[in-house]
Amino acid sequence: METLSENACFGGTQGVYSHASQSCACDMTFGLFLPREASDGPVPVLWYLSGLTCTHENAMVKAGAQAWAAEHGIALVFPDTSPRGDDVADDEAYDLGKGAGFYVNATQDPWAPHYQMWTYITEELPKVLDHGFAVDLSRQAITGHSMGGHGALTMAMALPGRFKSVSAFAPISHPTASEWGRKQLTAYLGADESKWIGHDATLLMQENGFDGPVLIDTGTQDQFIDLLNPEALAQAIASRRQQATLRMQPGYDHSYFFVSTFMEEHMAFHADALYA
Amino acid sequence: METLSENACFGGTQGVYSHASQSCACDMTFGLFLPREASDGPVPVLWYLSGLTCTHENAMVKAGAQAWAAEHGIALVFPDTSPRGDDVADDEAYDLGKGAGFYVNATQDPWAPHYQMWTYITEELPKVLDHGFAVDLSRQAITGHSMGGHGALTMAMALPGRFKSVSAFAPISHPTASEWGRKQLTAYLGADESKWIGHDATLLMQENGFDGPVLIDTGTQDQFIDLLNPEALAQAIASRRQQATLRMQPGYDHSYFFVSTFMEEHMAFHADALYA
Repeated sequence: METLSENACFGGTQGVYSHASQSCACDMTFGLFLPREASDGPVPVLWYLSGLTCTHENAMVKAGAQAWAAEHGIALVFPDTSPRGDDVADDEAYDLGKGAGFYVNATQDPWAPHYQMWTYITEELPKVLDHGFAVDLSRQAITGHSMGGHGALTMAMALPGRFKSVSAFAPISHPTASEWGRKQLTAYLGADESKWIGHDATLLMQENGFDGPVLIDTGTQDQFIDLLNPEALAQAIASRRQQATLRMQPGYDHSYFFVSTFMEEHMAFHADALYA
Repeated sequence: METLSENACFGGTQGVYSHASQSCACDMTFGLFLPREASDGPVPVLWYLSGLTCTHENAMVKAGAQAWAAEHGIALVFPDTSPRGDDVADDEAYDLGKGAGFYVNATQDPWAPHYQMWTYITEELPKVLDHGFAVDLSRQAITGHSMGGHGALTMAMALPGRFKSVSAFAPISHPTASEWGRKQLTAYLGADESKWIGHDATLLMQENGFDGPVLIDTGTQDQFIDLLNPEALAQAIASRRQQATLRMQPGYDHSYFFVSTFMEEHMAFHADALYA
């Protein structure tokens, strides 16, 4: 593992690290914020999964999460959103290929050799963190924005017991019924829609639910709201009687200005669960 | 004036606007955060002047200032750092020309026709704000980072009564004795060093001081600290018995991670002065 940068930040350290990923068969870069408390021993971890076009860096510099993570003594992980490198398949569209891994393990060519983001984030990167840093993997929570909200919700529901809490900012909530989803799931997983079920938060909510608290914010002026389909997930949550808070935030759009506005409350929500 | 974007943000609005600048003889873009309170009437204003290579956008998305401005009901102005456009003189170096206006009115060719950032920020942009937005120019404060800290300190001391308070993050504190200064002042103002005096915070502190509180943070691990020369300004402040708080922050560097870490305290400092 290579340290690309480390900056003092809110009493802790914001690092950026690169490592050779087995699952993605390429070098992968991630951001990790460690609060001051990590110098005394392992701290709980909040995963932040980013949206389309993002790298590890966008949320790390724009979401304003470190202030609140420092306040609660929580580590933040900012993974990349896809494999990277000259030999990694890509597409001209912003919503397929690099920057758009959709948090699945691709089974279809040309994507399958590198696009294994599900395994990378749920199996490989936790081991990297566990071996290299003072993080307590018995206390994990997960959040994300847009495509990353989709990733957070699907991972939380697919891996019972892994995460104490899950939240999302403007998540892609029902990708099997959205152009942000059908296109990518077809490309990465093939046309057989039965293979998509594990990657749709609404369907997973109907089938599994989540064994902990859920917090989801979406802006009423989100310019992509028809692609996000918050109503499908809201219905599934209410039908299931799932412990959850869903908020439609008046006037907010899809930007990091929206994310940063509500970050303090998401962090407090996760802190409650991680320190329960 | 053209509205380039407006995003809901911490209960207020983060806008980006473009206008034809008379002083810079080009179109100029600035960011303006207006808190919720601005819908009820004019609010006090904090100017944030950015550093080398920045546009209006960097601090607007990375400094985490809106959270605290919203808490205190203060507007934030994020001007650009130089004139822009294809017919504006530039230099290959990152620290001269575009992105490096140094907050002076250039008198030397090829810079003089457009590089009039002092007049733009102290005269023209205040009028633009006053005519277009609910800001109260009788309550202004100013801050900045690096080259922007230099701008904030020099403007605050050169314009008695204009600003209630001044703060700076890692300011270029003595540019007439630094390679971050001598190069640019020579280029923009010419080799006659007597013309530089009004653009050196240490010299202005020796001559004028500031009629209000001063807060300055610099990281002990700032990679540019030898160019910033905080010791010169510290000596001048102490010699003058100037009301001021100077902090050397252990472990912090020159990045926005440093700026965002201490933004809450800078905003509270300015709020105290603006609401006194």
